[in-house]
Order: sequence, then C-alpha cells, then structure tokens
Amino acid sequence: MPSPESDVLRAKYSEMADRMADNPDMSLAQRRAMFEELHVMAVEPTRVTYEEVKAGPCRALWCNPLDSDSERVLLYSHGGGFVTNSADSHRKVAAHLAKAAGARALVLDYRRAPEFPFPAQIEDAVGAYRWLLDQGFAANHIASVGDSAGGNLSTAAVLAMRNKGLRLPAAIVAISPAYDLELTGSTIESNREKDAILSRMPLDKTAMYLGEKGSVKDPLANPLYANLTGLPPIYLSCGTDEMLQDDAVRFAALAEKAGVSTTLDINEGMQHVHVYMAGRAPEADATIAAIGAWLRPLLQLN
Amino acid sequence: MPSPESDVLRAKYSEMADRMADNPDMSLAQRRAMFEELHVMAVEPTRVTYEEVKAGPCRALWCNPLDSDSERVLLYSHGGGFVTNSADSHRKVAAHLAKAAGARALVLDYRRAPEFPFPAQIEDAVGAYRWLLDQGFAANHIASVGDSAGGNLSTAAVLAMRNKGLRLPAAIVAISPAYDLELTGSTIESNREKDAILSRMPLDKTAMYLGEKGSVKDPLANPLYANLTGLPPIYLSCGTDEMLQDDAVRFAALAEKAGVSTTLDINEGMQHVHVYMAGRAPEADATIAAIGAWLRPLLQLN
Repeated sequence: MPSPESDVLRAKYSEMADRMADNPDMSLAQRRAMFEELHVMAVEPTRVTYEEVKAGPCRALWCNPLDSDSERVLLYSHGGGFVTNSADSHRKVAAHLAKAAGARALVLDYRRAPEFPFPAQIEDAVGAYRWLLDQGFAANHIASVGDSAGGNLSTAAVLAMRNKGLRLPAAIVAISPAYDLELTGSTIESNREKDAILSRMPLDKTAMYLGEKGSVKDPLANPLYANLTGLPPIYLSCGTDEMLQDDAVRFAALAEKAGVSTTLDINEGMQHVHVYMAGRAPEADATIAAIGAWLRPLLQLN
Repeated sequence: MPSPESDVLRAKYSEMADRMADNPDMSLAQRRAMFEELHVMAVEPTRVTYEEVKAGPCRALWCNPLDSDSERVLLYSHGGGFVTNSADSHRKVAAHLAKAAGARALVLDYRRAPEFPFPAQIEDAVGAYRWLLDQGFAANHIASVGDSAGGNLSTAAVLAMRNKGLRLPAAIVAISPAYDLELTGSTIESNREKDAILSRMPLDKTAMYLGEKGSVKDPLANPLYANLTGLPPIYLSCGTDEMLQDDAVRFAALAEKAGVSTTLDINEGMQHVHVYMAGRAPEADATIAAIGAWLRPLLQLN
C-alpha cells in the first residue's frame, strides 16, 4: 500500500490525465505548461543554490548543495518523453538526489522533440559531459542520472560515450526508465489499470522523438537493443504500479548478463517516477537515500 | 526604445495572449499552468537558498541570499490578478530584489480567487506579517513588496495593518500595481495598443477577486479609495507601455497629498512588470537596483 503522501502523486497524474481527456486538442505548448506543474510535487530542498550555465552545447542548471562536495557531479537528464518538462520541473528532484549523494547536479535543458528529434538529446548530453571533463571534473567523479525518458538518455548517453572511446562516468542511475519505444514490455498491459498517467497518455511521443530518420531499433534510441559490455555500475528503480516496470526489469537482466554491476530496485505500489514526491513521501525519500548511499562509494565519497 | 532583451517579455506576453485567443475555453487550471511560465523570464539568481515555510496562516517560500542580512525581510506578494501565479513563478524575481536590498524575501503563496475571494489575500498577508513579528523580526526591518495584483496587496495589507494598530513595516514597494478594479485610469485606453498582455486578457478577474460580497469601492480592495495617512515610504514603479501606468501615477499623487514619502519610477517603453526580466534585461536590472538602493537605508542597512 502506498503511503497517503505517495498517493498524492497518483491523484496528480489522474488530474492531469483528466485535463488532457477534457481537452483532446490541447496544444503542445499547453501540454508542456501542464507537465511543468510536476515540480510542485517535491518539497523545496534546503541549503542548495542554483546557477544557469551553458554546458558546452547544452543549456543547464547547476544545483549546488552547500554541504556537498563540489567536485562530484550528477549529470541529470529529466523525463517527459523527450517532449515535455525541463531543468526547472526537475530542479528539486535533482537537488534532493545531489544532496543524498553528497554531490552537485548539472540538470540538462537538452533540446526537445519534435523541434529537435533524436539524436539531438544524445548530442547534448554527451556534449555536456565533455564540457564537464574540459572543466576539470574527473570522469570517475561523475554519475549519469535520469528519470523516465531521461533514464533512457542517462543510459544511452553513456553508450554513446563508450562508442566514442571517452572515459566513462562512474555510474548510471535510471529511475523508471523509458527504454522500449515499441512498448513490448509485459507490464504495458498488466500494470495498465494501476498506472495513473501513462495509461492515459497520447502515444505519439516515440514518433516525435525519432522524427523521420530515427529507428525504434537503434540501440541509442532503445538501449534494450544495445551491447551493454563495459558499462559502469547501474542502479535501476521502478514501481509495481507503472507500465514501464518491465523496462527496468528487462534492462537489469541484460546488464547482468553483460557483466555490468546492476542494482534493481522495485518499489511496491509506486507510480511512474515516484521520486517526484521528494521530501514529501517516505517511499520517495527512501529511494533517494538508497540511490545516494549507492552512489557515494562509486563517486569515491564516504 | 526597449532593449532587445526587454522586448522578449513583450513577445512572451504576446505569445501567451495568442494561446488564450486560440483557446477561448481555456480552463482555469490551464490558464494557471500557462502563467506559471513567466518564471522563465528571470535568470536563476546565484547564491540563494530556499525553504518552504508555514508563515502563520499562509504557505510561503523563504529566499535566502547567502550574502544578505538574514534579519531584513521583503514580504513579497506575487502578481497574477489574485487568480494565477504563485510563490514559484515569482521566486526568482523576489530573490533578485532581496539580493539588491541586502535582505531575504518571504514569498507568499496566499490563497487565490475564485476559490478564496477577497479579503482572504489580505488576511494571509497580514497573518504572515504577524508571524514575522512573532518570530522576532523587527517591523522596521521589513518591507512589503509586490507586483501587479501583488502590488495592490502589498499596499492594502499595510493599510489593514495600520487599521489594526500594528507596528508598520519600514516601506512599501508596488511594481506595476493593479489598484483600480474599475479600470478608470487614463492609460487603460491610451496605452492599450502598446500593452501586449492586459489588452488581451479576460476581464473577469475583478469579479473573481471580490466574489459575491466584496465591493470595488472597498479601500482594501482598491487603495485609491483609501485614506493613506500614516503609510510608510512607498516606491511605485510602472512602464509607459502598460495599461496600468496610471494606477501608479494616481496613487503617487494621493500618497504625496497624504504626506507619505513617495517615489514614482516611470520606465520608458516598459511592459507590465518589466522586472520579470531580472538578470536578462538592463531595464529590469536597473529598476531592481534602484529599488534595492531605495530600500537599504529604510531597512537600516548601508
């Protein structure tokens, strides 16, 4: 049973889905405005300062916890189907994770689809990572972190780095990752009635993401098709009330098979990206604490 | 001529007005979602931390610049016609003003109309002020600050405090204040073609604010009807391209007549609440610097 606080996220998703159902012609601008509201789910994190920055090719927002090590970085890719949301809607969640990990977060405002289809997002994330290295941050002090579509991106960007022969970040975190653009996971149907948002979303985002040239079978668009050899340790989080649960489960199996150190964290009764409730719901705080504790030694912090 | 950076605000207002025109049945929830976007106009202020707080009866957000005096406070009432916007949409503007004044800001998430009509907003602002006094903040270290409808509220709340015999804050700042609910100002018509947002807004907000019981002639709803005797020094800012210019001009004349120390700052070519462009447009930064310099001695800072 989810806590009453976590049920607030289910209710919020349901209310947003109602608004889309009431307005089937909702413009993209209005849909984006609505999804930005998700930032209110997280409590404002204390003792964190912010700064806009151009991280190589990519606009980004530094989240700087006063009590963190400023040389450790979470390179954060936000969710929203590559179409909605922003560094602003995910600022608080990223800052909570950064505090838990004893690091800073660099939240990417990567270019979004459909204006900028795949692989613009990978280019932005890899470009921001190169910028961090150029700034003097050590690769093994950086983790690639993201949620939903950003969980796909946090993983695919590291695959792209590996393919380019770059030094790799120390870890990957993928929260409720949306890997499978073909929606073939078993939980797409079995969790449909429990998932308050994805069950009622328009399914045009894959086309928006891939544009006219991308392929659903490209390993950088769907890392379930990728050779995972050589990836750093990965933490996968998902909920049992979300349709994408099986994306994390399947990726964990593939990563283990490829010899990647893999942690799979399945959260009973949780909706998609339950960490949105950071600072308000115990399940969100427990997951954030677990991710932070997992990251610290990988980032060479105590 | 406005700077190209200030023209970005005009273009944003115009784009929002287009969205309303394209969707005349836009729900209140969607209108609120859209107006929240105004936060992107301001650059993220550096070296500021935040904290949610219950300020007596009112939810609020502390903005704490690292380099400010933590005993000086801007009690900030956001704009949005008493219907839209929030502490979140005005967090950055309030923090920029706080930095300029060498103070913190307490940004009120006062109850909004139509769910909570007048005088709920006054009750919240006065309640938050009482809470500050109870926390040990000195009245003469507090300024009441707001923009648009929040400029009305930042003024009316001090009138209510005076009526209750409370010690008064040291100063009032009203940026593009919306005082006149009857829209009788001369610039309502003469600036209509230049005002990119108010000229194209639904005019139902006054009814939403006042509900069934409020009166457009209540001095706490429209401070142009108030006896202004005994008010602390007031700074009024407005632009020559906004329909509400005359609200500030008329209030300045009334305040001077009542013996209130009054500063009227008329900004050539500026739209409604041009300080939204804090950190991006020179006119916004100049006004914020001027307000900060005006506030410091009143708050007994150097």
